[in-house]
Amino acid sequence: MRNIRLVLQYDGGRYEGWQRLGSGRAGRTIQGLLEEALSAMTGEVIELTGSGRTDAGAHALGQVANFHTGSAMSLRTMQDWLERELPRDIAVSGMDEVETRFHARYHARFKRYAYRIDTGRVHDVFMRRYALHIPRPLDWDAMRQAADLLCGKHDYTSFTNARMKDKSAVRELFSIQFEKTGQHVDLVFSGEGFLHNMVRIMAGTLLETGYQRLAPGEIPRILAARERQAAGPMLPAHPLVLLEVGYE
Amino acid sequence: MRNIRLVLQYDGGRYEGWQRLGSGRAGRTIQGLLEEALSAMTGEVIELTGSGRTDAGAHALGQVANFHTGSAMSLRTMQDWLERELPRDIAVSGMDEVETRFHARYHARFKRYAYRIDTGRVHDVFMRRYALHIPRPLDWDAMRQAADLLCGKHDYTSFTNARMKDKSAVRELFSIQFEKTGQHVDLVFSGEGFLHNMVRIMAGTLLETGYQRLAPGEIPRILAARERQAAGPMLPAHPLVLLEVGYE
Repeated sequence: MRNIRLVLQYDGGRYEGWQRLGSGRAGRTIQGLLEEALSAMTGEVIELTGSGRTDAGAHALGQVANFHTGSAMSLRTMQDWLERELPRDIAVSGMDEVETRFHARYHARFKRYAYRIDTGRVHDVFMRRYALHIPRPLDWDAMRQAADLLCGKHDYTSFTNARMKDKSAVRELFSIQFEKTGQHVDLVFSGEGFLHNMVRIMAGTLLETGYQRLAPGEIPRILAARERQAAGPMLPAHPLVLLEVGYE
Repeated sequence: MRNIRLVLQYDGGRYEGWQRLGSGRAGRTIQGLLEEALSAMTGEVIELTGSGRTDAGAHALGQVANFHTGSAMSLRTMQDWLERELPRDIAVSGMDEVETRFHARYHARFKRYAYRIDTGRVHDVFMRRYALHIPRPLDWDAMRQAADLLCGKHDYTSFTNARMKDKSAVRELFSIQFEKTGQHVDLVFSGEGFLHNMVRIMAGTLLETGYQRLAPGEIPRILAARERQAAGPMLPAHPLVLLEVGYE
């Protein structure tokens, strides 16, 4: 069996997120749609393993996934077939053959997400589906201070909607960078892994400091509280994009 | 009466173009929708004069229009009102008060349009609504030669679908530039004015030279023919954007 890795780009706007839904649940998902296409292409029943889920409405520039197949088709033929057959809001931008043991989720070493803010007094029409428009002034210094305090190796229970039960919520967050392009600011989160909804809740908490409703110095207390109510609100999914998944 | 000039940004994807439709004709237009908003805002019946029409499905980053009003509202209040009330695919990015005689169409001195081509073997998902995907190789040298031959002061009858009758089809086309950003190439047309569908037909003719189905040396003959059938096909509207309208 060959093991094939895909790099995926998608506009999540009309999807119920990455993960295939159980039988009886309606709605299109990226994983479900790709599995259908790969199965049609190979004539096999293909299961696709993603590096992790993305939320309903969130996007990807560099999601990674892998699948096993007995097909002898060349990668080039596969990629051209997928480019032709997939809906226009999903694309396979890269493809390579990896060793049998490779697992897109278990072997992921870091991820990079952007949360996009449109700071213009007048919004950018062409980014309306991909950015959160915040026309009022923000305290960027406070946001940067809070961002620095969020980084490091911490228990991020306060920043997830998942019930962690016995699972560890400790993750290492390497950095949060502020990348400005014209009237847009991308909050770029790099870390070894992220909990469910973590980026959207961190972005919501950073904005609270930007609005001066929360002092940056409160971040350590919020982390220590280990409960969801301690952090700020979860922001919508449409400004969120998975930029990159890194492997060894 | 005050005379107010607007700079407009719009995603034309769901509109029947700029121009208000006659009574009895269904469909939303940018001009029609803006006139409704401006009339609601001022309590007057507002007529809006655009620098020119844009096609159904085409976009604008810098369309210019003007209207007269007796309203004493400040420009700032107007702009904020419009930002709040207009649909998210239209925005008023600039506003100023101009002398009474100013006319957005008569006084326009140049226009700049981009026709966007996605040259990636795999298309860019996020530009699918704003670019024409052409994965096969193009002869860019031939396209540049043909572009240079299209520029100058010519009768562009071959490059319009409008019946010009007694009107002059002579225009001055200043330049056609090729602006490359990653896998995208913008064909940027600058000229004193453009005939109906002219950019889309010029882009279609340039692509014929890119496919090596037409020699660049044929351009003077096509111009001289002064008939639509001499030129290449008209391309779709969605990759077309009006970038700028210039005034003295």
